Amino acid sequence: MGNTVKRIAVLGSTGSIGQQTLEVVRALPHRFQVVGLAAGQNSNLLAKQINEFKPRFVYHQGKEKPLPQVSVDYELLPPEDIARHPQVDTVVIATSGKSGLSPTLAAVRARKNVALANKESLVMAGEIIINEAKNTARILPIDSEHSAIWQCLRGESQPPVQLILTASGGPFHHYSPEQLEEATIEQALRHPSWQMGKKVTIDSATLMNKGLEVIEAHWLFDMPFDNIRVLIHPQTIIHSMVEFVDGSVKAQLSYPDMRLPIQYALSYPERLPNPQFRKLDWTTINNLTFEQPDFATFPCLKLAIEAGKRGGTYPAVLCAADEVAVELFLSQRIKLTDIARLVEQTLAEHQATIHPTLEEIMAADAWARARVRQVISRG
Amino acid sequence: MGNTVKRIAVLGSTGSIGQQTLEVVRALPHRFQVVGLAAGQNSNLLAKQINEFKPRFVYHQGKEKPLPQVSVDYELLPPEDIARHPQVDTVVIATSGKSGLSPTLAAVRARKNVALANKESLVMAGEIIINEAKNTARILPIDSEHSAIWQCLRGESQPPVQLILTASGGPFHHYSPEQLEEATIEQALRHPSWQMGKKVTIDSATLMNKGLEVIEAHWLFDMPFDNIRVLIHPQTIIHSMVEFVDGSVKAQLSYPDMRLPIQYALSYPERLPNPQFRKLDWTTINNLTFEQPDFATFPCLKLAIEAGKRGGTYPAVLCAADEVAVELFLSQRIKLTDIARLVEQTLAEHQATIHPTLEEIMAADAWARARVRQVISRG
Repeated sequence: MGNTVKRIAVLGSTGSIGQQTLEVVRALPHRFQVVGLAAGQNSNLLAKQINEFKPRFVYHQGKEKPLPQVSVDYELLPPEDIARHPQVDTVVIATSGKSGLSPTLAAVRARKNVALANKESLVMAGEIIINEAKNTARILPIDSEHSAIWQCLRGESQPPVQLILTASGGPFHHYSPEQLEEATIEQALRHPSWQMGKKVTIDSATLMNKGLEVIEAHWLFDMPFDNIRVLIHPQTIIHSMVEFVDGSVKAQLSYPDMRLPIQYALSYPERLPNPQFRKLDWTTINNLTFEQPDFATFPCLKLAIEAGKRGGTYPAVLCAADEVAVELFLSQRIKLTDIARLVEQTLAEHQATIHPTLEEIMAADAWARARVRQVISRG
Repeated sequence: MGNTVKRIAVLGSTGSIGQQTLEVVRALPHRFQVVGLAAGQNSNLLAKQINEFKPRFVYHQGKEKPLPQVSVDYELLPPEDIARHPQVDTVVIATSGKSGLSPTLAAVRARKNVALANKESLVMAGEIIINEAKNTARILPIDSEHSAIWQCLRGESQPPVQLILTASGGPFHHYSPEQLEEATIEQALRHPSWQMGKKVTIDSATLMNKGLEVIEAHWLFDMPFDNIRVLIHPQTIIHSMVEFVDGSVKAQLSYPDMRLPIQYALSYPERLPNPQFRKLDWTTINNLTFEQPDFATFPCLKLAIEAGKRGGTYPAVLCAADEVAVELFLSQRIKLTDIARLVEQTLAEHQATIHPTLEEIMAADAWARARVRQVISRG
């Protein structure tokens, strides 16, 4: 590999994953160069990032003029054009929600390395993306769980027989269904192990997030749903495991720090030392525990896995209904437990399409969003 | 790899590792063929093995005539000649004690795959064996710990920064030094996780075994002693771990069953399904615990690591003194805790040679054995 500098575009640079990606670049400036930044509403932070990293290409949602606080030159481009630009080696898809889908497809089609943190891309359109990616682009997972599986599979020449996705259990681990009915926004946003954006944090509290990860794992590693197991592991040290045909299991471990899987995806196939990462201290790690997930208390986990198994447009509907429901919860319109109810009802009403086109996926998404809002406004 | 049949010679076929190697061959007869068997005293079992596996070459310690109970033809050869025979692909060195050293060297020099369970080879003559093996033979570790490390390193292009060898703690885990003084042979032979030969079982009870494994890991993986950590893990599910330069750690897990690392070494680079192996059941694994080793109560661990660090003929003296001391313990001549005392005293009296030849190693071995016996007979 030598000491080549990788040219990186970060789409969603002002979000949690985007900021942590830039921290990795900041720590390893001789290996990574930011050539593209794209962000949504947070123009103050984006302006700071542009001044610091001096990207050639910028996208600022809804803005067609350069930001006033910026002192360096750049070219304004749509995120898809940044994703496929010849001067970009690796595209980090750090946006949340369905807005990640279109630039992911653009990057895949342009044969980029696609460092993928956006869950919705694979959940909504896994079949399309994986088919497009075959033999062309390389999808490098950034989620800690999928990075763990990817690391465990490294160098193995045979497919695994089981993936074991670990889950912290979230802030409501061991809650009864009755207790969960009373969960507040403040509690739901207080994740025990990970610092993340609000949407992902709420999804972690309902275990919807783990269900979406099961669907992602299905597509990323070509694994049947029945061979993907979810295991609650509250210490969040083992990030996932892989079982091989001989029964041997490999696990990947670290303290929870998204910068490690981000850096691994950026530096792959190399591993780079980063003094900011805390090494596991075996004088203080005494105990790693494991429990079965509570599907009854956290119905979103099962809803997601079932939607994944049914396939077609069901996962897009799951995603869309969940996204709207989480917004409704965050704006105090519904209870946390209503999220699963709304998602379940929307899935039940959905007339699915199998092997959908991108347009059919987007139509299912739009239908599901409208349907959830309609149900709520009818009250 | 296709479905080629690997031709295997098992040296030490009637011991614990030898018998388990033959179990693996028996379970996968289309992949492995036994072409050589060598054993010591247990001629009844050896005869049965010859009748079942019909090897072309046999060695029977101290015997120059075919065994009377055997109904098939074979050629009698010394173990070194079996190890280097052109009709042998993989040599399993399953003997215990220094008798493994000479056939290991023969196999390495003949560029065989050397599936190595014998600890003494690398501990006594690691420098010689590794130098001989470079770019020629492939040493495939069979110990569960070293197999775990080897599996975790698979596909990694950079050397690891730390090896974490796990240890069950043995039957006297949490004993005080005073309690250990009263340890009986029956207690010492009752290992909590592994079924092994007597010598290894006693070495596991004193933690000498783990110390020898540290020295082996040093040679197998070219790792400085200060970067090899021993961690007590009583459940014996994680067989060892590797830390990489980015702080990511990989672990290999399974129930304790020596047949898995044996099979991995035989089938490498393939992994083969074996219905006899019990898969990890995550509905019953609730808790993996870790503790620091108690160097004060188990001085053999530190003695071994120190001998490894000092190098030269010290590890050979450690091995030899330990082997004689374990025999003395098993024949009820000394207490369990006397093993460390005898080893320590012998090491202290030893005039070491650095970068020793094989002859100097053997001379140190002979000196140490005589010295321990002398100390005891005077006692």
